[in-house]
Parts: sequence; structure tokens; C-alpha cells
Amino acid sequence: MSVVEKLAVIGCGLIGGSIVRAAREKGAAGQVAVYDRSPEVRARVRELGIADIVADSAAEAVADADLVIFAAPPAAIGEAVREAAPGLKAGAIVSDVGSVKSAIATAMKKAAPKTTFVVPAHPIAGTEQSGPDAGFASLFENRWLIACPLSDDAAYMQAVETLSDFWHALGSNVELMDARHHDLVLAVTSHLPHLIAYNIVGTAADLEESDVTEGEVMKYSAGGFRDFTRIAASDPVMWRDVFLLNKDAVLEILGRFTEDLQALSRSIRRGEGDKLEALFTRTRAIRRGIIAAGQESAEPNFGRNRK
Amino acid sequence: MSVVEKLAVIGCGLIGGSIVRAAREKGAAGQVAVYDRSPEVRARVRELGIADIVADSAAEAVADADLVIFAAPPAAIGEAVREAAPGLKAGAIVSDVGSVKSAIATAMKKAAPKTTFVVPAHPIAGTEQSGPDAGFASLFENRWLIACPLSDDAAYMQAVETLSDFWHALGSNVELMDARHHDLVLAVTSHLPHLIAYNIVGTAADLEESDVTEGEVMKYSAGGFRDFTRIAASDPVMWRDVFLLNKDAVLEILGRFTEDLQALSRSIRRGEGDKLEALFTRTRAIRRGIIAAGQESAEPNFGRNRK
Repeated sequence: MSVVEKLAVIGCGLIGGSIVRAAREKGAAGQVAVYDRSPEVRARVRELGIADIVADSAAEAVADADLVIFAAPPAAIGEAVREAAPGLKAGAIVSDVGSVKSAIATAMKKAAPKTTFVVPAHPIAGTEQSGPDAGFASLFENRWLIACPLSDDAAYMQAVETLSDFWHALGSNVELMDARHHDLVLAVTSHLPHLIAYNIVGTAADLEESDVTEGEVMKYSAGGFRDFTRIAASDPVMWRDVFLLNKDAVLEILGRFTEDLQALSRSIRRGEGDKLEALFTRTRAIRRGIIAAGQESAEPNFGRNRK
Repeated sequence: MSVVEKLAVIGCGLIGGSIVRAAREKGAAGQVAVYDRSPEVRARVRELGIADIVADSAAEAVADADLVIFAAPPAAIGEAVREAAPGLKAGAIVSDVGSVKSAIATAMKKAAPKTTFVVPAHPIAGTEQSGPDAGFASLFENRWLIACPLSDDAAYMQAVETLSDFWHALGSNVELMDARHHDLVLAVTSHLPHLIAYNIVGTAADLEESDVTEGEVMKYSAGGFRDFTRIAASDPVMWRDVFLLNKDAVLEILGRFTEDLQALSRSIRRGEGDKLEALFTRTRAIRRGIIAAGQESAEPNFGRNRK
């Protein structure tokens, strides 16, 4: 039996497109409606045949929907909710997938009718690709969905439970968390890694050709650099929004990273081999923990070497 | 027909163990001898049955060898060559696999008999795992081998050609490069990425538990962090040596990275969304170049999502 009668997904890129496919494949929703503000994306979703309804406005897509998931870029979600608002029925669950929760929760609360239940959420899953073609139904399997409830009222908590059931049906594990804490945790596990990856790829690309050419960077990237380029190939608009909307937590964690990097740089300059070896031994254990937690492949090179 | 009659590999970890397996599987050497200064590793190599001879001294392993490849940690190579020197025959090719070339070239030249040909080399290949069990025969296929000739004398260049033929037989593409230039290129494509990965994993592990717990870091690592942990799980001793032996180039490139990071941090603080989006769009193109150059899988998430 489906978790909700009608699901509407607003914004149909990698994440929205994966939700739509997963909801249908796993029977989590009786009917799936989609709206994307790009006419090209709407046309492509119609071609792909992955939704029951591809509407030409947000308000039309959300009409009669029990659950509406906004999967637009983080800074565009408030406006998208405003656009959809006239169509939202009383009691509808209004949720999202944004990588930042405090700022988006505020924007959604402001834009959504008081008769709806706003439950901000974030699936910790994705790839470096974008657009409706990049989505796939198994993206959320064995990944975490963090929901950030804004009230502990009984009717509201019922909405949170329905949202949790929906994500469970998609294969996710669900965790409830305070929005501000989410933003700090994700600054560590996601935002800082992306910032660093974008930066190192930028540094390598900007070297004077007389030092190291871009061709050399690409050719010899198997030594480690190529791993960073995957993350630095993520959606530019989404990540611009993440850094601007989670500015404080990102700059705070970046400050600690920079302090540590200065200490590491000093150890290299001074030739403190014992300190280097101690750090490098400690970091090795973290990966084992992630593999043990089922969040990573144990295969060397992420399994790239598989034939 | 094999490229050399007898190959000796000194140090049998991930890289040495892969060379030994590849040389036999591809018939690149008539006979393969191994020495490792760890008795446990020697015993394990005997058990694995991957070499024709497992010698109990370096000098014994290299006796009559046409090609000797030192695959010990970078700072241990000079001493390993010194140990092997009494056994090296006149005309033998003495090479290595170290990730730093200038310092190792100097150490090898100093330790090797004048009657041998010292040809420093570096295969741009590896995984985050260590030890003889981690090696596999296909590791070098379609990867680059950089050799750094120290002379242009005809007899010497003949030795360089034999070494190139050997690596070609293992499936590698060979490039000749000045040792100092190698060290700068690799500082960009390999050493800085490792330094940054070690640092970010260390920063995350050292956060106060009241902020973000280590359990949370592991649980939500699929947002980007887990990619960094792969590199930060690389061999601690080898990487200690790399940073100490290539100190100048690493600190130079780290300086540029830090400058760029400060500018990026300022853009976030000031809310300069256009600058962020421009950088993030530019970095996306670099990955396409690496995939086009055949040095990376085009599959999303490195193919982790394959079922």
C-alpha cells in the first residue's frame, strides 16, 4: 500500500528525478505529479515518462497532494513554495531536500499556508551529475534522511511520521535532528569537503602554464587529484546556494580546517616526521569506521579497478 | 618474449606486490626475485607464491638481475640500494617507484655502483591499501609511468628504453620528465590532494564531541566527506616520507592553495554568489577532461552505485 495518495515533486533534477522514480518503483505514492520551472526539463520528464502528471505550474502540480517535496536549488525553495501555495490543500505535508536546513525552514514557514505542515528534510545522497536524466530509483537506499521537525504538536508529529514512512519506503534510514545542528554536522561532512574540492581543482587549473600545464594535471590525476574533481563537478547553482545559506557554520568549520592545515604545514617545514605519521595513522581508522557503518564500499579505489 | 631475463623487486607492498604479479602474468620477466626487509612480508610472499625467488637479503635477490626495482618507502630507498649494492651486476638497471624523484635520484646515485644505470621512475597508480596482499596485476594498466633520466649518454638511454619496455609490457604509458618538474607536477596532482585529505579528516575527527560527534561524521559521510577518507587511508609511512622529501614543492603549492582558499572564504563572507558560481562551473570542466583522457571512470559516484 502506498504511503501517500498523491505526491508532488517541485524541481526535477538529480534528486527530484530520483524521488519520482523511486516513489513509483517502490509504490510509495499512488500518483506522482511533477513541476519544474524549466520548460525543457518538463518536456524531458514527459519524454522519460517517469511521472503520472507533468504540470505547467507549481499550483497545479500540488493540487490535492498529500505530500509535496520541493527539490529546487536551496535559495529558490522559498519562492517555489510561494508559487505553489494557492494550490496546497489543508493538511498537506510540505517538505524539501535542501542541504541547508535553518535558512530553508524559515523560508518555507514564511511562504507556506498555515494549514499545511512544513517538515524540512535532507536526504544525504547524491552524485556529481545533474538534471532529470541523472536520477535513479536506488539513490536513497541505505542512505540517511535527516528530518528537522519544527514543532512537537501531535498532529504535526503525525505529519513527520508520514514523511518518515515515505522515505523508509524509498530505502532510507530516517533521523530527526534540530535544524541548526544539521547545518553544523553537514558543514563538516559535506559543505567543507565540497569547498575544499572546488578550491583545489581551481588552484590546479590556475597554475601558470610555465609551471604545470592543465594537460599535465589531467594526465597525472590518478595520483589523488581525480578524486577531488568528482566532488568539484557537482551542481554549481546548488552549491553556491549552500555556501551562502550556511555561511556561519561553513566559515566556522573552515576556520578550524585552516588552523589544522597551518600546523600540518609547520610540521612539514620543520621535518617533524613523527607528527605526520601519527596523524596519517589516525585518519586511516576513520575510513574503517565509515565502511563498518555501511556508508562506503570496502573495495580499493571505490571499486574503480573492477573489471 | 620477456623484456628482461631476471627482475628483482626490493620491498613487496602494494606497488612491489603488483609489479611482481604483473611481470609474471604478462611475461615481462623470465624470473622474478623478491626481497623485503620484513620477515613477515617475506613469509607471506612465499605463501602467496607470486615470486620465483624470495631471498633473505637484498644482495641475494638482486644477484644477476638485469632490472632491479626498489619499491620501499621513499626515505628508505637509499639505504636499500646500499644494502643491495654488493650483489648488483655491472650494467644492471636500478630503478624505483617513489612518488618523489629529485631526492630519491640523489640517494640512489650515491648508493649504487658506478657500473649500474640508475633510472628513477614513478608509476602514477595505487590504491589506499597496503601490503603484499593488496597488490594486483592490472594496477598499472592504462596508467602513466614517469621516468626521469639522469643522462643522455647512449648506453644510458638504452637502459631507459629497456625500463620503458618493461612498463609498457605491464600496460603503462611511459613519459620521460625532468626529476624536478616531476616533483612539482606531482605536488599538484598527488601530494597536495593527500595533504588536504589527511588534514580534513583530522579536523573532522578532532571536533569537540559537544559540536559534532565522530559517529555523526561517519554516519553522514556520504555527503562528500567519505571521498576524502579514501585518500586519507593511504600508507602513513610512505606519505610521511613524500612530504619530507618533497617539502619545497609541497609548501609552494600549498601556499597557492591557501591563497585561493582565503579568496573563496572572503567571497562566501561577502555573499558574492556570482564569483562562487563561476568557480564551481569552471571546475566541472576539469573532470570532463580527466574522463576524456581515460584517467577516470565516467560513472557517477565512481561507479559505487552499480548493483
